[in-house]
Amino acid sequence: MLSNWNLQLEEMYDKMVEWRRYIHQHPELTNQEYETSKLIASILSDYGIERKINVGGLGVIGFIKGAQTGKTIALRADFDALPIQDEKDVSYKSKVDGVMHACGHDGHTATLLAVGKVLQQNRNQLAGNVVLIFQHAEEGGGGARKMIADNCLEGVDAIFANHLWSLIPVGTISYTKGYTTAAGDGFEIKIKGKGGHGSSPHDTVDSIAVAGQLINQLQYIVSRRVHPQKTAVVSIGSIHAGDAANVIADSAILKGTVRTYEKEVQQLVEEEMKDAIRGICLSSKADYEFNYFHGVAGVYNHPNETKIFASTMKSALPEIHVEEVPALLVSEDFANYLEEKPGMLFFTGAGNESLGAIYPHHHPKFDFDERAMLHAGKAMLAIVDYYLVESDLEVIEQCNVVK
Amino acid sequence: MLSNWNLQLEEMYDKMVEWRRYIHQHPELTNQEYETSKLIASILSDYGIERKINVGGLGVIGFIKGAQTGKTIALRADFDALPIQDEKDVSYKSKVDGVMHACGHDGHTATLLAVGKVLQQNRNQLAGNVVLIFQHAEEGGGGARKMIADNCLEGVDAIFANHLWSLIPVGTISYTKGYTTAAGDGFEIKIKGKGGHGSSPHDTVDSIAVAGQLINQLQYIVSRRVHPQKTAVVSIGSIHAGDAANVIADSAILKGTVRTYEKEVQQLVEEEMKDAIRGICLSSKADYEFNYFHGVAGVYNHPNETKIFASTMKSALPEIHVEEVPALLVSEDFANYLEEKPGMLFFTGAGNESLGAIYPHHHPKFDFDERAMLHAGKAMLAIVDYYLVESDLEVIEQCNVVK
Amino acid sequence: MLSNWNLQLEEMYDKMVEWRRYIHQHPELTNQEYETSKLIASILSDYGIERKINVGGLGVIGFIKGAQTGKTIALRADFDALPIQDEKDVSYKSKVDGVMHACGHDGHTATLLAVGKVLQQNRNQLAGNVVLIFQHAEEGGGGARKMIADNCLEGVDAIFANHLWSLIPVGTISYTKGYTTAAGDGFEIKIKGKGGHGSSPHDTVDSIAVAGQLINQLQYIVSRRVHPQKTAVVSIGSIHAGDAANVIADSAILKGTVRTYEKEVQQLVEEEMKDAIRGICLSSKADYEFNYFHGVAGVYNHPNETKIFASTMKSALPEIHVEEVPALLVSEDFANYLEEKPGMLFFTGAGNESLGAIYPHHHPKFDFDERAMLHAGKAMLAIVDYYLVESDLEVIEQCNVVK
Amino acid sequence: MLSNWNLQLEEMYDKMVEWRRYIHQHPELTNQEYETSKLIASILSDYGIERKINVGGLGVIGFIKGAQTGKTIALRADFDALPIQDEKDVSYKSKVDGVMHACGHDGHTATLLAVGKVLQQNRNQLAGNVVLIFQHAEEGGGGARKMIADNCLEGVDAIFANHLWSLIPVGTISYTKGYTTAAGDGFEIKIKGKGGHGSSPHDTVDSIAVAGQLINQLQYIVSRRVHPQKTAVVSIGSIHAGDAANVIADSAILKGTVRTYEKEVQQLVEEEMKDAIRGICLSSKADYEFNYFHGVAGVYNHPNETKIFASTMKSALPEIHVEEVPALLVSEDFANYLEEKPGMLFFTGAGNESLGAIYPHHHPKFDFDERAMLHAGKAMLAIVDYYLVESDLEVIEQCNVVK
Repeated sequence: MLSNWNLQLEEMYDKMVEWRRYIHQHPELTNQEYETSKLIASILSDYGIERKINVGGLGVIGFIKGAQTGKTIALRADFDALPIQDEKDVSYKSKVDGVMHACGHDGHTATLLAVGKVLQQNRNQLAGNVVLIFQHAEEGGGGARKMIADNCLEGVDAIFANHLWSLIPVGTISYTKGYTTAAGDGFEIKIKGKGGHGSSPHDTVDSIAVAGQLINQLQYIVSRRVHPQKTAVVSIGSIHAGDAANVIADSAILKGTVRTYEKEVQQLVEEEMKDAIRGICLSSKADYEFNYFHGVAGVYNHPNETKIFASTMKSALPEIHVEEVPALLVSEDFANYLEEKPGMLFFTGAGNESLGAIYPHHHPKFDFDERAMLHAGKAMLAIVDYYLVESDLEVIEQCNVVK
Repeated sequence: MLSNWNLQLEEMYDKMVEWRRYIHQHPELTNQEYETSKLIASILSDYGIERKINVGGLGVIGFIKGAQTGKTIALRADFDALPIQDEKDVSYKSKVDGVMHACGHDGHTATLLAVGKVLQQNRNQLAGNVVLIFQHAEEGGGGARKMIADNCLEGVDAIFANHLWSLIPVGTISYTKGYTTAAGDGFEIKIKGKGGHGSSPHDTVDSIAVAGQLINQLQYIVSRRVHPQKTAVVSIGSIHAGDAANVIADSAILKGTVRTYEKEVQQLVEEEMKDAIRGICLSSKADYEFNYFHGVAGVYNHPNETKIFASTMKSALPEIHVEEVPALLVSEDFANYLEEKPGMLFFTGAGNESLGAIYPHHHPKFDFDERAMLHAGKAMLAIVDYYLVESDLEVIEQCNVVK
Repeated sequence: MLSNWNLQLEEMYDKMVEWRRYIHQHPELTNQEYETSKLIASILSDYGIERKINVGGLGVIGFIKGAQTGKTIALRADFDALPIQDEKDVSYKSKVDGVMHACGHDGHTATLLAVGKVLQQNRNQLAGNVVLIFQHAEEGGGGARKMIADNCLEGVDAIFANHLWSLIPVGTISYTKGYTTAAGDGFEIKIKGKGGHGSSPHDTVDSIAVAGQLINQLQYIVSRRVHPQKTAVVSIGSIHAGDAANVIADSAILKGTVRTYEKEVQQLVEEEMKDAIRGICLSSKADYEFNYFHGVAGVYNHPNETKIFASTMKSALPEIHVEEVPALLVSEDFANYLEEKPGMLFFTGAGNESLGAIYPHHHPKFDFDERAMLHAGKAMLAIVDYYLVESDLEVIEQCNVVK
Repeated sequence: MLSNWNLQLEEMYDKMVEWRRYIHQHPELTNQEYETSKLIASILSDYGIERKINVGGLGVIGFIKGAQTGKTIALRADFDALPIQDEKDVSYKSKVDGVMHACGHDGHTATLLAVGKVLQQNRNQLAGNVVLIFQHAEEGGGGARKMIADNCLEGVDAIFANHLWSLIPVGTISYTKGYTTAAGDGFEIKIKGKGGHGSSPHDTVDSIAVAGQLINQLQYIVSRRVHPQKTAVVSIGSIHAGDAANVIADSAILKGTVRTYEKEVQQLVEEEMKDAIRGICLSSKADYEFNYFHGVAGVYNHPNETKIFASTMKSALPEIHVEEVPALLVSEDFANYLEEKPGMLFFTGAGNESLGAIYPHHHPKFDFDERAMLHAGKAMLAIVDYYLVESDLEVIEQCNVVK
């Protein structure tokens, strides 16, 4: 049955490429994806897929109802672009100045549209339902949270998502057990000293001197406080203090990012930062303001769904190399869905040196091998097949008994 | 004789105030003192004082020739203003938006004009000559250097200058043996790391992290390398690095100021900075650019002229409290003259709480008690009297023998 | 067949306990294990096991030849004790003052003796051979290297070892894929400054001041240079400088330890330390000596043998909880064997709160639940069964086909 | 009259040398100067000088009563030796192993004995009294405090002391206005962390890591908190933490010294140290103990007595070069007397390269040109002459009027 679905998907390949390239040429920034949202809704309509628009803003949901009752599986794609100037030299280059699909969301969306089409035309084979979640505003725009608040996960039993990845060669699908992306938090520290003439430090509280000590102290969090086997990054991305060479700056502003996986490590870093800042400022009579912003959590792949994914891929996609890899340090707001429902996020290799698809995500020359969409689509079909096609279910149960 | 001169100066007090207030209302920025320069030249002409204009730019020199030959003594005043908005509430407030005489140069000039007038009308009593140096561009404009290059010190045996000082109460004249102001140097350090994503410090050379260590290392120069009894200040006035919280900054720029008195301390600090920067960058694989700017040197009061000044003041100005004080940390380009000729710089108390003359120099509400001009003028007359009036010279010689 | 072996091992339990307690009462320090070595040799002789003594020093090897040809599997136990005062209150407490089996090596040896006895009496069922490696000098004594140099691995196809672990509850066996213990290196840094009187830092190179900066700089290796997902620990365990409060110390000696897993991380840390020390000393005009000592590498469990172990345990020891765990940060010289031959090290839970077996290894009150020896022994029998018993081999092959 | 006294002192030169060398050969450690104390008392008795022994321990006082009433002037010498091995190659080398007069106290005492002899035999010329204070225990033994507590300053109007100084060439007497030696304080900081295994920093509070940050923070006191024109030294002389390379040290002990002149700077440093330690420990969750020991204060030469000294020397000792010099960073417990009475301490040049008198005080090869004792003695006679000989007093008064 799956092999049949795969054939139908392959027939849609040209369409997928066409959609992807159209979206690529017409990128829209986070929370401003008006036209892309309309396009998705229109295609779903064309294929007779029941849909809901303006979910949590500009999100779109498609509903595919199986012939029989069963589980409800959600598949998610995102569709916002980035404020980056497209520097590629291709026919489907962005037509919008300074805006570009540099993270592959165009591909995610084209893939899910095609997957939806295939499932819709085979819905009589399904024992259960599929929810197609087309999410806007993934790039820091809160899209996941907003769509969840607007009930996009209602009735969903498990949710899966694909991320195309240019740094993995096409032909490979990779996944991670447990955390697969990091929590990305932010912080802003304002050291409040007391300004004065550069020749008279004794009359001042030199905020830059305090910053020097603080930069050092913050290193100790990773080097001494966090478990050596746990990942934590504390990076100060910017520091700005003072206007004149000969005037002591009354304040210094440091901004930075924190990356962790586990919640307890995340909390530890925040607590240790508080202590470090408080102590260092105290030691120099400075005041301070410290703001710590909780960003997107780490995407935590649920153990059972990850196991199902891994074994399903191996059997369903023999031509694809499936491998377990370490987590990435980037963030993805798919984390929000997995805080609500079981599921997992997998990465579909889309790099291809001969096509120039060698640049990292968010790079002005980012591109991907479009065949990866076919692989990702087949992976999604396999997931649905696993959960919603009865005959397969029986086989799986037997296997479990045997083991 | 001196008492007679002093009476003549007192009679000119209203004129001094008038000049000072006119200049105060019409301040001109460094190297743009066109009208003030003309005004000075015009007054000198009015009093029949031989003059030279456009010396080293907008400087003006007046020459007073004594009846008999003798030494040539130079007296210096400066006349540029500052880019500061006058916030005083007085009738003679600056009429130029954002420009203000906030350092007392208006008073210096008015004083020297009056002193010139008195000396000119008593020139038949002088055994020697007086050179009145009206210097433009003191506030970082290189005025002293330019006028010296234009030969303003030709034939001069000794040079003296007055600085009104609002933080010393009116009625006091203070001086320092040796260095009386500091050398004020500047520096700019560019730490050149390698940028990257905030989540991947290992792929970068984090210029802010390097800056943290460097800020610390630079403290050791003053705390460990400079002789504990010598003065040195190394202040970082500004640091700027990075635009985004989650991107590691590829470079950091630190600017600062160095204050020292002795040349060997100044050189030591510069050398130690080189070592500190080189070592810290090396330890983190960063490159750097280091520029050290030699500013105005410290004003070094020559021992003999300072001794003469001190003893002359005590005998000639019994109503004025004369005191030896520690050096200031500010800079004055009068240092350039004293690198060429013997002489000294004294400070005339001009503070008066009841008049609101309580603000430091360069403050938007800076003002001074105008009677200080009279004190400064008398001090200058006493200096000339010491050097150029024969009868006094004899007395002094006798005193030296007695002692 | 395995169930039969297990029964035979259970019958030996009293003997195992007797051996373990005798060894526990008569601990011998690293490279001085004369009596323990003799005891092992004597027991092997008693059971008719061919043996070789004084292997690489005081090591002992037992050889069990199967009835048929096949692979050669090595099983390793160690038997040296530690310079720690036994503070337990038990009947089998150490009788040697200041020396104690505080790491469970007594249990490892007792276990392997019993396993050897069982295998020897069932050797006609074996298609292949078993090498029992009783290693002396594991605690920093170079025992593994010495025995390997003395050819203890000749002909061996794979090697396995058990470590009892008091921090894992009895009833559990845990293992790690890849690195399971860390490389433990050491370093010594001598900062060579220039001493002098405490009141005159400018005439000195203050080695303690340099140390302060260096301590900070070394933190950056872990916080900024090592990949955030890789483990590295750089700890300074001791610093000693100066004798008198008012004399600046001419040198400072810092000693420490480095823990890493991967060779490239280990090398990176060493290289970064070199840069850090060189740069910091340069920035302060200090000289230095830096010695980095390569200790035992991390134990790297080979993928295939680890997979075999995991699946074998699950099927052969259903009553034992088998779990994959993260690596430990401690070191084990079993690493040396795995640099030569495939194999792996597993940890057998031996903690039991009701028995007071709650203290970490190397603690004066360390003890373990002796039933853990039975679990470890059964695990070893299962490994031998997997590799050397034909009928099982067939079954396994079938299973692989099915999967 | 003074010239007569000087002749009498010169006649005593051989005696002074004899005394000095005897004391040099028989040095006695601080608070153990039994024989030296007896010797002084005995010589005073021989010359008929009224004396008091065991003053505040082993101190000795001689009283010389003038023929007429007048002021009471105290002259002080000290007489303890140091725990240093004499490495000079001279006939009068120390006969006591490991004990040596390496600071010139032998010369101070010999000088004052001779001065006492001369004054005693001319006491009929004195209008007032002289108190000869022979002080034990200057080298950290609290001698000054003890003798003061035992009323050695009763009735004293002014007190003066001489210190021979090998780093000033013989033939020069130098003095400083205001502070002439520094306050020498001590401190001990115990950082109390939490020990643990070197591989597990996250379970510890690494006291050495905290020390690293603290060493840095303490630099900021001198570089940023103390007025740039004020002297302050904060030196950490020793740090000791940890026994083993692979164990994180639970505590670190830092000892050091603080040098300052003014009381407010001394207090500022102590306060800033408190803040620095508190803040840094807080930032790392460490506890601490901080002990600050107030040592001998700086010797503050009173303005009037210093002026008297300077002018007296110039007129009375024309053959001696008298110069005003910067303060020294060493400490002297003569400070205690000057907290009670007006007076001053002067330094008598005693260096002579041709004699090998080139080593600093407290050096194993320290020695001085013995003719310096004659200079110091004459200086003391001149002081007494100034205060207690009437005819001179009249002259001085006249001079003051003239000036």
